[in-house]
Amino acid sequence: MAERGGRRGVFVSFEGIDGCGKTTLLHHLRERLERSGTIPVVTRQPGGTILGEAIRELLLDPHRPRAHGWVEVLLYTASRVQEVHEVIRPALDAGRWVLSDRFADATTAYQGYGRGLERDIIELLHRRMALDLEPDVTVLIDCDPEIAAVRLRKRSGPRDRLEREVKTFHRRVREGYLQLAAMHPKRFLVLDGNRDLADVLAAFERELKLRLPGCPAL
Amino acid sequence: MAERGGRRGVFVSFEGIDGCGKTTLLHHLRERLERSGTIPVVTRQPGGTILGEAIRELLLDPHRPRAHGWVEVLLYTASRVQEVHEVIRPALDAGRWVLSDRFADATTAYQGYGRGLERDIIELLHRRMALDLEPDVTVLIDCDPEIAAVRLRKRSGPRDRLEREVKTFHRRVREGYLQLAAMHPKRFLVLDGNRDLADVLAAFERELKLRLPGCPAL
Repeated sequence: MAERGGRRGVFVSFEGIDGCGKTTLLHHLRERLERSGTIPVVTRQPGGTILGEAIRELLLDPHRPRAHGWVEVLLYTASRVQEVHEVIRPALDAGRWVLSDRFADATTAYQGYGRGLERDIIELLHRRMALDLEPDVTVLIDCDPEIAAVRLRKRSGPRDRLEREVKTFHRRVREGYLQLAAMHPKRFLVLDGNRDLADVLAAFERELKLRLPGCPAL
Repeated sequence: MAERGGRRGVFVSFEGIDGCGKTTLLHHLRERLERSGTIPVVTRQPGGTILGEAIRELLLDPHRPRAHGWVEVLLYTASRVQEVHEVIRPALDAGRWVLSDRFADATTAYQGYGRGLERDIIELLHRRMALDLEPDVTVLIDCDPEIAAVRLRKRSGPRDRLEREVKTFHRRVREGYLQLAAMHPKRFLVLDGNRDLADVLAAFERELKLRLPGCPAL
């Protein structure tokens, strides 16, 4: 790929509400890359480092007392800052692909638009602490919260805290993601996640090829 | 006590480098208050809530990988924001005394002055997320890092990460605390922690009585 802002690798983030299908799309791209001989760094937010995974546990464990909204912002940002410095930036500098299940937009969408906290501070933290790192492409799988909820109910295992949030909250988050996409049209690739998975995957491949014409796997 | 900024309780924080004697002074005041029939809320930073104590474990466990400097700021702030909203502010509103082993000044001294991170952001976080809550009195036990180190070596049990930091770092932290005290002379009560404990305690009682003339225990 061409050099982007001083780095040689390619950074793709996957965003959307729980149940939208983002993790499925991430692993689809991972497999396509691996089959073509490119082993991407795959990560998730929160998480991705030993410290980040411990923070993830604090945030998503449904048995813990609920964190204050700003505490959520601080903990999600902490996980991300650690990962940007420890994993993502070094991988991009080394020319590797990085695929991240959620990144900075998730904090803006969930805590900013969803919980109504000031987005200027959320974005300031990313700018000043996380090198203002932006994905080359952010894949947003836009999905009706009702449809996402049906998918989540079919999944096995206990739901984490976020997945139990009420639907009105998820509607605000969805709206927030769409506003972010409208503000950053060059970076965002918005897919209609209400359709069948096969259709979403086909659109994903087609659109990503246009965004990343040199991609080895597409 | 008189009402202070809309609250009825009294908030005293204790600051200084590890080994300065701040925890001893805190418990001395706690006992004096309890003997006079006033049960204070006693807390520590990081910590003080279930979430805060889990964050404390993340930060101070010497077996975990080292957090990036900004991640330290975010985690210390997260612990504090949770505690301000969940414990300290409600206690003060209910007219109670709150004694805290470290508070916001510690993050400015350690991560700002000690690690050289921008203090404007550290202070912005406190202002915007933690109600800009200030102690009525901040007791700073100023101490030579060499003397503090000798005291720490006498303590039993494993040292946590901060206590193993090099002395040059602690010199910068000490200097930072003194600068904060110079900037906030009405709030800070600076004690010479290089003297014997009995002398420090006597000075503490004498000075605190001047700052808090209505204090039931002094």
